[in-house]
Amino acid sequence: MIIELLMIGNEILIGKTQDTNSNWMAKRIVKYGHRLKRITTIEDDIGVISRTLQTILERKPDMLIITGGLGPTFDDMTLVGIAKGLNRELELNQHAYNSIKRAYDHAFKRGILKLEGMTKEREKMSYLPQGSIPLPNIRGTAPGVELKEGKTSIFVLPGVPAEMKAIFLNVIKPILKDKRGKFVEKNLLFMGIGESQIAPYVTKLEKKYPKLWIKTHPRIGLSLEVEISITGFNIENGDEIAERALDEIREIILSLNGRIRERK
Amino acid sequence: MIIELLMIGNEILIGKTQDTNSNWMAKRIVKYGHRLKRITTIEDDIGVISRTLQTILERKPDMLIITGGLGPTFDDMTLVGIAKGLNRELELNQHAYNSIKRAYDHAFKRGILKLEGMTKEREKMSYLPQGSIPLPNIRGTAPGVELKEGKTSIFVLPGVPAEMKAIFLNVIKPILKDKRGKFVEKNLLFMGIGESQIAPYVTKLEKKYPKLWIKTHPRIGLSLEVEISITGFNIENGDEIAERALDEIREIILSLNGRIRERK
Repeated sequence: MIIELLMIGNEILIGKTQDTNSNWMAKRIVKYGHRLKRITTIEDDIGVISRTLQTILERKPDMLIITGGLGPTFDDMTLVGIAKGLNRELELNQHAYNSIKRAYDHAFKRGILKLEGMTKEREKMSYLPQGSIPLPNIRGTAPGVELKEGKTSIFVLPGVPAEMKAIFLNVIKPILKDKRGKFVEKNLLFMGIGESQIAPYVTKLEKKYPKLWIKTHPRIGLSLEVEISITGFNIENGDEIAERALDEIREIILSLNGRIRERK
Repeated sequence: MIIELLMIGNEILIGKTQDTNSNWMAKRIVKYGHRLKRITTIEDDIGVISRTLQTILERKPDMLIITGGLGPTFDDMTLVGIAKGLNRELELNQHAYNSIKRAYDHAFKRGILKLEGMTKEREKMSYLPQGSIPLPNIRGTAPGVELKEGKTSIFVLPGVPAEMKAIFLNVIKPILKDKRGKFVEKNLLFMGIGESQIAPYVTKLEKKYPKLWIKTHPRIGLSLEVEISITGFNIENGDEIAERALDEIREIILSLNGRIRERK
């Protein structure tokens, strides 16, 4: 599957919050052999959300995961933006309403929250774009949302990491597993020869193994320490082939008098 | 200024690398009162880079900072993608060539690198889109690049954090300072009342202080601990006004029997 992420939140753009959600999701998307093609981070703004959603949908990814802006406040406008972008109405979803009410009733009875019952702000979270399936949020109150537009499955998750992770693991991970592809990854760290010196050999190897991505990542300026990574999606006997490419690289590094520092 | 970031690198999209560059830059952009409107992360792919660049330029930001993909390997195709997106040729930049050669000569003489002189891969880094100004990279070899397209200043920086930071601090920070706006930020943490209970008061305060963004961020599920942040760009007497709004919030929290835990 081709997947995109859309992160909504001013707190990321003003540098207040380091976005760790996208890296957490990226690892899991790739683990099951799917390709994360793009991550877009935007403000809490209805117009920006709806236009960005439309642009992403024009690229027709198989899955789009949106996080952030599902809470009870006036500024949590993700679902309004999505409804506008999809040209759908927001409507009260009774399942969502019931689960939100249950969570607040429970919290009130346990003395965790002081205000009883549903308020306008709490009700707001149960207004979902037409055609939504609410996704239970066991770590919070705002439910996630599942939608379909054309061939794209859209999942909308809370931005709070614990809530995002719980819904991701319950709902999205089984889909990733079910439609799994194969991702292979091999890494090697070397020192003593620069990135530019090994570059022509890497280019040759890429031609020899056209399905692999063979990339060098300098770790320190002037490429004194370089990591080489070999990755590939859905290659038959991918592990074996990547291992063979890695062996060739190892020989090249040693023949250039480089030192291999570590192998993960 | 309105600013966008474009991060280029498969290693972020496969979850191998946690992108910390964008958060580091966001903090500094906001500190000097500029607005970071969007962060886009894409693959090392010429077509994707050129199309994404064109889409960003259609939004006419004042500044666009691009990071990643400037190195000597075949896969470092950021400048090719930018040239294509801007419909400009790549041409050998003699200043860039000289500084790259100097860096390699120096490293060879000190015994750090084993391969002497310029190679095709090293030369590659000195081919810049027409109209580029190379930006010295004191922490590595690939120079940064400064370009202008319409009203947008484009800066292209290496993805290695130490190299990105060095060029950012030398070249971009002085511009941010020179064109500085004012950013105000106040934060407060409270417990004992949920986000949904305080939401209607926040909405009222936002109407009273229309230039401020007053936002609540739940820290734990069910909003047991909530951070409230007040931010604003370029507001006359912003600090005073934000302080006044914060005082009102403090009173509201206490009147609802909430507890204030911390004030930053």
